[in-house]
Amino acid sequence: MTAVFGHLNPDTDAITSALVYASFLRRTGVDATAYRLGEPNLETAFVLRGAGVDLPPLLTELPAGSSVALVDHNESAQSLPGLHDLAVTHVVDHHKLGDLSTNVPVYLRFEPVGCTATILTKLHREANLPIEPTEARLLLSAVLSDTLHFRSPTTTAEDREVVAYLAQIAGITDVSAYAGEMFAAKSDLGDTPAATMLKMDYKVFEFGGRPYGLGVIETTNPAYVLGRKAELLEAMDAEKAASDLAGVLLSVVDILGETNRTLVLSATEERLLTEAFGATVTDGVADLGHRISRKKQIVPALEAYFESR
Amino acid sequence: MTAVFGHLNPDTDAITSALVYASFLRRTGVDATAYRLGEPNLETAFVLRGAGVDLPPLLTELPAGSSVALVDHNESAQSLPGLHDLAVTHVVDHHKLGDLSTNVPVYLRFEPVGCTATILTKLHREANLPIEPTEARLLLSAVLSDTLHFRSPTTTAEDREVVAYLAQIAGITDVSAYAGEMFAAKSDLGDTPAATMLKMDYKVFEFGGRPYGLGVIETTNPAYVLGRKAELLEAMDAEKAASDLAGVLLSVVDILGETNRTLVLSATEERLLTEAFGATVTDGVADLGHRISRKKQIVPALEAYFESR
Repeated sequence: MTAVFGHLNPDTDAITSALVYASFLRRTGVDATAYRLGEPNLETAFVLRGAGVDLPPLLTELPAGSSVALVDHNESAQSLPGLHDLAVTHVVDHHKLGDLSTNVPVYLRFEPVGCTATILTKLHREANLPIEPTEARLLLSAVLSDTLHFRSPTTTAEDREVVAYLAQIAGITDVSAYAGEMFAAKSDLGDTPAATMLKMDYKVFEFGGRPYGLGVIETTNPAYVLGRKAELLEAMDAEKAASDLAGVLLSVVDILGETNRTLVLSATEERLLTEAFGATVTDGVADLGHRISRKKQIVPALEAYFESR
Repeated sequence: MTAVFGHLNPDTDAITSALVYASFLRRTGVDATAYRLGEPNLETAFVLRGAGVDLPPLLTELPAGSSVALVDHNESAQSLPGLHDLAVTHVVDHHKLGDLSTNVPVYLRFEPVGCTATILTKLHREANLPIEPTEARLLLSAVLSDTLHFRSPTTTAEDREVVAYLAQIAGITDVSAYAGEMFAAKSDLGDTPAATMLKMDYKVFEFGGRPYGLGVIETTNPAYVLGRKAELLEAMDAEKAASDLAGVLLSVVDILGETNRTLVLSATEERLLTEAFGATVTDGVADLGHRISRKKQIVPALEAYFESR
């Protein structure tokens, strides 16, 4: 059996792509089962509820040598612990290639598009496998989520085409209204604890040989999130100590205004933000302007900054 | 401009795939040029002559930061020196994933099939780009070469389908006869120096953290090659010293008999061959039975052997 899963701290793409790719693999003769590596965020829960689809089961470990298919990630720091001892047979992803390697030939499909679900849609079309309405709804939701309904600079013409194609199959006539509902669901943080908010969309990256935690809160209500700054900074500080990180950044992305304000935890992070991005810091918040994509605008700038030092 | 190339010590797949993928990229709007990283072997020269296609130019270095597309390889030890400082934008390959990593999202297409040309054929069909007869001949030659006309255990149903499809476009009615001519051309070693023979199909791999050179001579006339054992051992010894290798293996693969006899350079290699493969050694030649695929039968066994030590 091949376990199919997206990254830790899963987002909508990580969970829906695992579900759809596991189904795709089964249809092509591979015994595959979808899993998740963490709890769904509010947007993902909204999407699954709307589609009438159950959450895939939580996976926390696998015996060495187990077959796995990765979606929406490839770096071991973002995956199941012990990934290097598992047999990766398939990867479908739209991120940079990290520390993955294999002992035998493997199936890899990476494209620099806005969402894994865009690639999965292409895979179905290439194989002449029809996409069911429920799966079309899941895939469409992932593309809207990852591209912030085409606002993110990661958006490509293929993502737009795929959404138009999937909307027809899913019977979603007003895509903008649906995207608005998704983003409102994601922003309805209510009494979510600050530690949970930090980890909702959070990944660890290595820069200059040391680990940094990069969280993003995409919201239609940035004032609410920034209003909880003190609690969030406490949660970031606790995470930095607990996971022995060199730094933690938490970006509050205003989905509708397309701006990024990043909380500044200490002098280390302040230096990073001002030197790597030329950001100005006011009241412990760095203004990162329109850099709303971690993948395309935050991580590459940090890579370049650390490489130039 | 994006430079497109296959591995060092190029074989037919490395050279023809670079030519066809560069053309494919140009047709999809990427400014791409094909190169080779070494001299063609006798089979590749025969294939290009038959197709009326010029050799791509030799590439020996590129400035740091240059854009490159890799075909038929992905490991830095098999690529242009300084690969880690180049910007890899595309890889089409059918080998295991080695030490590649990127700073930004990338296009990767890896499939565990017999030949890169099989994947390239699929890319054209998915994009609805017709394959010209000359390119069909190049791609078909690569699949016949890499799979030893379907004798290699790396052969998949897709490789067979692709050859049938390409033969029609290329107007090759007797594929077996054409494959026979290719293998005869490859085997016509005449007065080729032993050092050249060693390097005709030769790659360096890391096992247990140390580099090993693995050469293969695929021939319809193994008696001729084994008759030059003394010279070949001298060339292997010189290469081992010059490149500071932990070991050098040279396998003489009988294409028609589907057997592998590997020259034993020293006690180090003898131990490796007897322990990793259970081979018997007679007169300085190890009998590796029907293990005719370096990728599928030699490298994985050596990986497993070094991991278990």
